[in-house]
Amino acid sequence: MTTKNFQQALNEEFSQQTYGENPPELYEPIRYLMSLGGKRLRPMMTLMATALFTDDWQKAVKPASAVEVFHNFTLMHDDIMDNAPLRRGKPTVHEKWNANIAILSGDVMLVQAYELLMEVEDSRFKKAMKRFNRTAAEVCEGQQLDMNFESRENVTEAEYLEMIKLKTSVLLGYALELGGIIGGASDKSCELLYEVGINIGLGFQLKDDLLDVYGDPEKFGKQVGGDIISNKKTYMLIEAIEKATGETKESLNYWLNAKEFDNAEKVKAVTEIYDKLGIKQLAEAKINAYFDKGLECLAKLKVEDERKTELKAFAEMLIDREV
Amino acid sequence: MTTKNFQQALNEEFSQQTYGENPPELYEPIRYLMSLGGKRLRPMMTLMATALFTDDWQKAVKPASAVEVFHNFTLMHDDIMDNAPLRRGKPTVHEKWNANIAILSGDVMLVQAYELLMEVEDSRFKKAMKRFNRTAAEVCEGQQLDMNFESRENVTEAEYLEMIKLKTSVLLGYALELGGIIGGASDKSCELLYEVGINIGLGFQLKDDLLDVYGDPEKFGKQVGGDIISNKKTYMLIEAIEKATGETKESLNYWLNAKEFDNAEKVKAVTEIYDKLGIKQLAEAKINAYFDKGLECLAKLKVEDERKTELKAFAEMLIDREV
Repeated sequence: MTTKNFQQALNEEFSQQTYGENPPELYEPIRYLMSLGGKRLRPMMTLMATALFTDDWQKAVKPASAVEVFHNFTLMHDDIMDNAPLRRGKPTVHEKWNANIAILSGDVMLVQAYELLMEVEDSRFKKAMKRFNRTAAEVCEGQQLDMNFESRENVTEAEYLEMIKLKTSVLLGYALELGGIIGGASDKSCELLYEVGINIGLGFQLKDDLLDVYGDPEKFGKQVGGDIISNKKTYMLIEAIEKATGETKESLNYWLNAKEFDNAEKVKAVTEIYDKLGIKQLAEAKINAYFDKGLECLAKLKVEDERKTELKAFAEMLIDREV
Repeated sequence: MTTKNFQQALNEEFSQQTYGENPPELYEPIRYLMSLGGKRLRPMMTLMATALFTDDWQKAVKPASAVEVFHNFTLMHDDIMDNAPLRRGKPTVHEKWNANIAILSGDVMLVQAYELLMEVEDSRFKKAMKRFNRTAAEVCEGQQLDMNFESRENVTEAEYLEMIKLKTSVLLGYALELGGIIGGASDKSCELLYEVGINIGLGFQLKDDLLDVYGDPEKFGKQVGGDIISNKKTYMLIEAIEKATGETKESLNYWLNAKEFDNAEKVKAVTEIYDKLGIKQLAEAKINAYFDKGLECLAKLKVEDERKTELKAFAEMLIDREV
């Protein structure tokens, strides 16, 4: 029962999944996107949560893969909506094929996620599915809010946190909760697991925002400062807009409204504003508070401590990540 | 237990469904599309099939509505892919809002269809869902084939029939089968019901193709000849291409390749070609054969004849329809 075993079981599961054959335009994009990899964090979380309650965590592998297939479905559709050219460094499905194919392949992926979820045993299935439905709807709500925010002048911290909770955290919460449901955990334990996931998810997304500005360019996969260049309303920018006054405010507005600029210069200038306003420390405190809350919920879970080792180590890996 | 009771129960159900609130961009399009109405054929079929086996057909109302919500989800996404400006005479969702909203609202509709399907009682739910998943994937396959056919020179009759079976008939088959599952029918009866739906569905779609050419303009809602004007590869055209020789073939090719033409003139000329080739009689024979096969399957069903009255009358209404 180690992380390696979980990873291996998932790799095997994903390498066996075939998704479908005809017409190839419908199924090839699914294989393509799933083959691009990714960290498989969500199904890992499901297996870890199941293993808290039972040694027979293998029965959670297929339902866990449902969460990953669902996640990739959202990526396929979100990439159309966000007009994203690349996903994991490769052309997105709508770029490689076209938008219609990305819509329809995505639809089938959602159906396949449900099919995989059906591997939850009968007595626990409806609970798993009810919560899956709620989560899936919330992820869509988060994506819609994210799109709405793009065209809005001002977004409050509370609105932003609600958006990332819906768009990202609820699925991490569900991934853990599903593991609990499959493992036969009590309702109370399932709720706690969900809270662990929600809080770790919020910390995780805020860390993403932080790394975009303060990540080590040597280690960070993407361009450092990408969010700054595109004026993306991240936690960092929202806080800076709220805190800036006087000259700092003027300078920030200058960069936000600049139509032509040198990327490196803008990144440097806005990062200096964040430095001056203490945005990094603010973000770090917020991230730590969420991670701490997540670990607190995990501590409350009525399970022997030694069973929690894997999940705790996993959470700490997410906390300490630099990429 | 009359058609009117079924209709009333469905109207009440649909008028009560709220779909969701926030963000409004996500849920308003669902309410809009569902409010445009439609004949609600599919959920009617589910209720009728349930009523073959039990007087407690009310328990099928919510699952039946899942089939209608699923059908409308496919309309919302298909309309984006087909670039359709109108649906039931009103602007399509992607026209009234935009394509991104139509993608995301459609996604949530699919989730909601699953949520409604969950109202099937526990002991029968996984069977209902397994068949729903298969059907949903097939409907997507049919849409992909339909899109593929647009850019192909030649489509055979067999390919066309397979496409409309997937795109249209399997959902009618499922609508009946679901009713059987909910009503506690045997596996054999469920399969027969599915076959009834498949065959009626094929007849139904071919009748659509026929009415587009030979419908009474006074009664037919859409423009008669619309398929001819757009060179749509319907059963009529596929047969005509296969059967035409000599001068008739030349004339047909002329109209298929004409870039500029008078709509009425093209419709008249191509209809005359169909007349000469006996396409109408061919289509009518095919349609009747499918409807007959559907009614035969219904006759084989081990249920008292008087219980079948409603469903038989419904099938005959579909056979005799002029719109």
